[in-house]
Amino acid sequence: MATQLATPGAAETGLLTYQELHDRLRAVGGARYHHRHPFHLRMHKGELTRGQLQAWALNRYYYQSRIPIKDALLLAKSDDPAFRRTWRKRILDHDGDTDGYGGVEKWIQLAEATGLERNYVISGKGLLPGVIFAVDAYLALVRDSSLLVAVASSLTELFSRDLISLRMDQMRIHYPYLIPGLAYFQGRLTQAPEDAAFALDYVSTHAKTRAEQEQVIRALERKCEILWAQLDAIDYAYVQPGNIPPGCFVPQTDAG
Amino acid sequence: MATQLATPGAAETGLLTYQELHDRLRAVGGARYHHRHPFHLRMHKGELTRGQLQAWALNRYYYQSRIPIKDALLLAKSDDPAFRRTWRKRILDHDGDTDGYGGVEKWIQLAEATGLERNYVISGKGLLPGVIFAVDAYLALVRDSSLLVAVASSLTELFSRDLISLRMDQMRIHYPYLIPGLAYFQGRLTQAPEDAAFALDYVSTHAKTRAEQEQVIRALERKCEILWAQLDAIDYAYVQPGNIPPGCFVPQTDAG
Repeated sequence: MATQLATPGAAETGLLTYQELHDRLRAVGGARYHHRHPFHLRMHKGELTRGQLQAWALNRYYYQSRIPIKDALLLAKSDDPAFRRTWRKRILDHDGDTDGYGGVEKWIQLAEATGLERNYVISGKGLLPGVIFAVDAYLALVRDSSLLVAVASSLTELFSRDLISLRMDQMRIHYPYLIPGLAYFQGRLTQAPEDAAFALDYVSTHAKTRAEQEQVIRALERKCEILWAQLDAIDYAYVQPGNIPPGCFVPQTDAG
Repeated sequence: MATQLATPGAAETGLLTYQELHDRLRAVGGARYHHRHPFHLRMHKGELTRGQLQAWALNRYYYQSRIPIKDALLLAKSDDPAFRRTWRKRILDHDGDTDGYGGVEKWIQLAEATGLERNYVISGKGLLPGVIFAVDAYLALVRDSSLLVAVASSLTELFSRDLISLRMDQMRIHYPYLIPGLAYFQGRLTQAPEDAAFALDYVSTHAKTRAEQEQVIRALERKCEILWAQLDAIDYAYVQPGNIPPGCFVPQTDAG
């Protein structure tokens, strides 16, 4: 409702070439993707305590658990069996073929490696409202937008491989207790680039006007905001003392 | 969608008396209403700079500007002309009868008193995504819930008079440049208690089962979370340096 995407001004009427569109999208990622967020910078320098990593894994689980729901909402927008066949791979990647497999399960294993109880993670208790609102904004964006915009909102995956690769290296060095939980990231190293290539090709060929191209760019910006806001909420609540909102997860005192 | 409201456990089956329900609601307010938020505590101690008050007034404008939209969504849920007549007062309070009047306009005047340009405030530029997501979660809650839950989500007004009264006193002392912008709060001192009394009476008589009473309590909790999360985002971005998200309002350097 209030998350209407901007339409371009009168000056922005010339269709972008594929290269120009890709350059604009890459520029959005360079400036707004959450690899630059203070919480990630702290994570990669080894500055986070186990309790802070628990808070991150717990809250990020809510995002992970909504991804297949987001992809189902997106699937429901397409009347093209070929598109749906390709996109449903994402649901399979996250849900697996049977209990105990898939990306959602692997994220639970990461949360367990931080020291959280599986059942607590799944319960949804203790989550930061700010994270819930940001993730729900992603579901609403996909549900209430065109298929083109919904696909474009997945384009953050263009930038995720480098971040995940760096994160895995730094986690092995600084937080070796997480090593048993890194399977999720291992899988995403190959899944994310495949998914991103398909989505980039899709928006490149299906954005037929400059206005649609601007919608694609704005959708990527909004998705970057959705990822960034989750880390804002986590960084605010768990880095400075005294900021944990009422009812949210309180880490046990830890020494790092 | 993901903001489903909790249903009570098996032990919670006895209908609460009005007094018990009111006590439960007051307890939620005491623990979770944003009068306890660190940003408000700082505000009332006179610790905020002009730039921080600008960031607050700007972002909170987004909330204010959505209130009549929220009330229109709520109005659309009722098939009772008497209820709609009473509730539409809220839309009138915020929109006024003509340009230049009403609560939304008065909030713009408060933002101007902080030193912001009216057109910038109205433009919606520079807003924190975390604030947008929280406010949009309020609209979604009202839109997607029963009339009972939608009305219950307004019950934070039970607690607003004391907060507003304290805020006005402290603003006059610590931020005298805001005095020309306090008309919004002056109006709310009488509007909010009237509105809250009606809503409290409504939920007391229309929650017919314990499950519905628990929905009412949960709706108030969720609304508290929505208010709290807005201040989390503002406090995070504008109190410690280096945390303003990409593309958001940057105050001019100020000395307080």
